Amino acid sequence: MLQVWALEGIPEVSPGDDLVALIGDAVDRGEPLVDGDIVVVTSKIVSKAEGRLLRSDDREEAITAQTVRLVASRTSPAGHVTRIVENPLGIVAAAAGVDASNTPDGTVLLLPEDPDASARSIAAGLRERTGAHVGVLITDTLGRAWREGQIDQAIGAAGVHVFEDLRGQTDAEGRPLVVTQPCVADEIAAAADLVKGKSSRMPVAVARGRADLVGALDLPGARSIVRPAERDMFRRGADEAYADGYAAGRIAPH
Amino acid sequence: MLQVWALEGIPEVSPGDDLVALIGDAVDRGEPLVDGDIVVVTSKIVSKAEGRLLRSDDREEAITAQTVRLVASRTSPAGHVTRIVENPLGIVAAAAGVDASNTPDGTVLLLPEDPDASARSIAAGLRERTGAHVGVLITDTLGRAWREGQIDQAIGAAGVHVFEDLRGQTDAEGRPLVVTQPCVADEIAAAADLVKGKSSRMPVAVARGRADLVGALDLPGARSIVRPAERDMFRRGADEAYADGYAAGRIAPH
Repeated sequence: MLQVWALEGIPEVSPGDDLVALIGDAVDRGEPLVDGDIVVVTSKIVSKAEGRLLRSDDREEAITAQTVRLVASRTSPAGHVTRIVENPLGIVAAAAGVDASNTPDGTVLLLPEDPDASARSIAAGLRERTGAHVGVLITDTLGRAWREGQIDQAIGAAGVHVFEDLRGQTDAEGRPLVVTQPCVADEIAAAADLVKGKSSRMPVAVARGRADLVGALDLPGARSIVRPAERDMFRRGADEAYADGYAAGRIAPH
Repeated sequence: MLQVWALEGIPEVSPGDDLVALIGDAVDRGEPLVDGDIVVVTSKIVSKAEGRLLRSDDREEAITAQTVRLVASRTSPAGHVTRIVENPLGIVAAAAGVDASNTPDGTVLLLPEDPDASARSIAAGLRERTGAHVGVLITDTLGRAWREGQIDQAIGAAGVHVFEDLRGQTDAEGRPLVVTQPCVADEIAAAADLVKGKSSRMPVAVARGRADLVGALDLPGARSIVRPAERDMFRRGADEAYADGYAAGRIAPH
């Protein structure tokens, strides 16, 4: 049985706030954490605590500053430009993960600088405070290729196996399960979104029931989920790649 | 609180089996279904019940037959070809969703012909049998662009709002939440995978705690999650689009 619930009473987070204290206090008002629990934290409050709120009237400028590589862009009939970019974390996301919702007017919120490090810090703090051997995921809401809508995914992880290790296991016919590598961190991030909600102030959830996934704080983080561009068949939008090819073909010697 | 658990004792499924009966019997041995529960069924057993097991020694041939459109392909140094294709359901998936794991040697399993219809049939049957107003999702394990590993996603849905409707809701600053469209069906599919597991014979899970997402059987199905290729910035692999552009550029008049 997997149980997932949101913590109530996490206040509005400000720069410098101690998330371990805020989360720990919220836990103290409800169900205590136990060994194997996974605490799932919306990146927004991590960014706020780390002071990643920037004064910027120009969200587009902030997106440009957070762009390592333009993957694809599209202009809507109304003139709205959507940019899918690789951000400094290697994550491919619309608007580079720059967020202007739930932030004061005239400001934008950048993703945490190193979400795996943030997760390690929160996990270490919660382990020390509660005595429970917990893991921590930091999540963001991400769009996808080929499918409409968004789902929450893990952008930071500590003390959690982000992939289920099926090596050595076999299917019901006795053949090795080689290809499948379930990204359990993303699955837990998605599950947590179902209880956190988007408009409510419930940025932290707890997932209980997969204690087998919780381990040492130096396990590979969510960075290991990011597929390097050179191995990615979709490292560039179809229109952009076509245009690149067209330009190269034009100048190729006949 | 979201609770997700797998049903125990679902037997090996054969063509013609009545999934409502198999799932209903498994429910009867455990926790009864209540209004608002969402039953999450691995597509593999739907395919098996619907006789989608094909005798085929050549999986590649079966993939070709299930290919509406080649999206991208890559050959590994060892000569293994990975094909990402759009299948007849519009779903972009590696190997078109053709499955050769957990099937007898010399056979492959195709996806259900119409997973939304399959979901409607199972949901109608379970509602009649149990008296509980439940929804049904049918899931498959899908890879993603940009991120390693796979997560379970919804390929069939009935009686479930596949997207959370945030229209009219505002963020904490009072601004409308317009862009975000959480794909809750995919999030529930992902959550269910955490209890079903890949190697165990637990192909059905129940998710309880989001009764607000359960509705009429004629709600839009999982087909509505599929982004039409013409609106998809990643409708073609980067290498393939580049090659198309290059070829077009070569023959363009100078």
